[in-house]
Amino acid sequence: MKNCKEFVFSEKKVTVYFDSLFFDLEKIIKKGDAVLLIDENVYSIYSTFFIGWKTIVINSGENFKQQSTIDEVISSLIKIGADKTTSLIGIGGGVVTDIVGYVGSIYMRGVNTGFVPTTLLGMVDACIGGKNGIDVGIYKNMIGTIRQPAFILYDYGFLDSLPEIEWSNGFAEIIKHACIKDQEMFQYLESLSFNYFRENKIALQALIERNVVLKSKIVQSDEFETGERKLLNFGHTIGHSIERMNEISHGHAVSIGMVCATIISEQLTGLKKTERLRLEDLLKKYSLPVCFDFDKEKIIQNINFDKKKSGDDISFVLLNKIGKGQINKIALSELTQLILQLF
Amino acid sequence: MKNCKEFVFSEKKVTVYFDSLFFDLEKIIKKGDAVLLIDENVYSIYSTFFIGWKTIVINSGENFKQQSTIDEVISSLIKIGADKTTSLIGIGGGVVTDIVGYVGSIYMRGVNTGFVPTTLLGMVDACIGGKNGIDVGIYKNMIGTIRQPAFILYDYGFLDSLPEIEWSNGFAEIIKHACIKDQEMFQYLESLSFNYFRENKIALQALIERNVVLKSKIVQSDEFETGERKLLNFGHTIGHSIERMNEISHGHAVSIGMVCATIISEQLTGLKKTERLRLEDLLKKYSLPVCFDFDKEKIIQNINFDKKKSGDDISFVLLNKIGKGQINKIALSELTQLILQLF
Repeated sequence: MKNCKEFVFSEKKVTVYFDSLFFDLEKIIKKGDAVLLIDENVYSIYSTFFIGWKTIVINSGENFKQQSTIDEVISSLIKIGADKTTSLIGIGGGVVTDIVGYVGSIYMRGVNTGFVPTTLLGMVDACIGGKNGIDVGIYKNMIGTIRQPAFILYDYGFLDSLPEIEWSNGFAEIIKHACIKDQEMFQYLESLSFNYFRENKIALQALIERNVVLKSKIVQSDEFETGERKLLNFGHTIGHSIERMNEISHGHAVSIGMVCATIISEQLTGLKKTERLRLEDLLKKYSLPVCFDFDKEKIIQNINFDKKKSGDDISFVLLNKIGKGQINKIALSELTQLILQLF
Repeated sequence: MKNCKEFVFSEKKVTVYFDSLFFDLEKIIKKGDAVLLIDENVYSIYSTFFIGWKTIVINSGENFKQQSTIDEVISSLIKIGADKTTSLIGIGGGVVTDIVGYVGSIYMRGVNTGFVPTTLLGMVDACIGGKNGIDVGIYKNMIGTIRQPAFILYDYGFLDSLPEIEWSNGFAEIIKHACIKDQEMFQYLESLSFNYFRENKIALQALIERNVVLKSKIVQSDEFETGERKLLNFGHTIGHSIERMNEISHGHAVSIGMVCATIISEQLTGLKKTERLRLEDLLKKYSLPVCFDFDKEKIIQNINFDKKKSGDDISFVLLNKIGKGQINKIALSELTQLILQLF
């Protein structure tokens, strides 16, 4: 197929098929050798796509990223008769690819997986890098593995049915990538607009591909997150904490988390205030929130259960300048003070 | 510490401390950095050993190797405040090390694990090679991963409190190793007896070490079971199926499974009948059953959910002669006929 890239990770090779159609899936894997695990919304809109495939429909939304869903999926796989040679293909947003990546790493001690991301956030972030996970109660991604899929197939046509909020969620992670690693992309996003990318498919596809390459390179350099990969957590410590407590989408929570982290950066790295204001302007331009009236005590309480914590310290991602993130080990007591001073 | 070996697997290095005492654990890991997950029987007998450690007590027995136990363990870890730097140490038999190996590979996307096997079966088999798993209803080890622990510590003193049946369970796997790979060990076992090893600690320790090295070498050559590692499934296809249906211990089920596989070997590899009779005699010598009145239809039905199945075939381990196993791909229809003709 045209425009196909391979990324080699320490564990295995991932083939990424850009500019494809869903129907190309048959060229990659035989219908009889796969089970498709499909987001319920995607299934209801595109049901005719899945004729002749074995399918499991998965409930939508972060609330279903729990063990009970895993139990149901595993029962369904046993009923279908899936064995070690079966490939599990996740079709949906980040919740579905997380569930499928996780089930694929534990079902019969591991079977092949493939992803067809259908949301912007899935395309630029969630389906890349092999991290998967489910929540345990309010604790995000407490359980999971890091394991690469065999392939990722991009059919941008799925974006035609994407709800408004999902567009801004995707842009939150794109802006995150720009902040930590790609000043040029930051300027490029500043020069254009939310609607420009929604209306200009060529530019959107190039932007998606740029983000896939950027994230894949970071993951290749540090698959198991002992160093550089931590940069991708920019905005996610406070972001996850906000997301846990409120009915707010992941991208929106990360957006607020990034603003908080830049305010903290002003104090700790000497980031210029003008840079923070540029970030706030860019987030607003892409329909993302920059402040939120949250309960700081609860934010701090939740951070005590963040996976990035080790002992009394936490790895916290700061900006040195736009396009350059840095990882600081901060004592939890210090972070507590910094959060209490926010806004 | 004395007599310590390192085995390097594709994924990582495993340090094995033979001839150790439980109290050496403190030399390997600080009390504050670990959570001990302990079999309830072991805990009740040796409770003073665990003073000053953070502990979680795990229910004993194969019936608890289910998702509900995993859920409880994870809740306890969250309550204790275990983070990515915490090591999980499993102390018990194969059920406990399976549970701890599995939880260690998914908790916060993976934390370090260590094992202190307390049963003979755990020492010679279950804790080596990184395979872990839980059952889903009647389906054995349906969910799990392959992931090596950081270390294994052997304190043979735990065997002093081992129930009679656990001794024979351990010998089933020792005899399995002898059958597939070590004719000399087979003869050595023939020349001695069950009680000899129970009374002669030096000989027992050497036998355990020999089995650890034998299994580790097989796993090193094929960690993810694409070839040679499958040999270790000798007796386990029919064995697991029997175990699923009946209240029979793992080693006893494997013993019957090995007899069935040698009867089938007589037909498929030309194994001599005298060799099969030698195996039956050896199993009896080590208090293991060699026949059982089972429902063949159900055995066959269960094999359809065996992980070793792929499509219409199954990898089945046969003996070429004592000390030499071989892996055959057998059509399920042919295996069905062979099982119907057994006994």
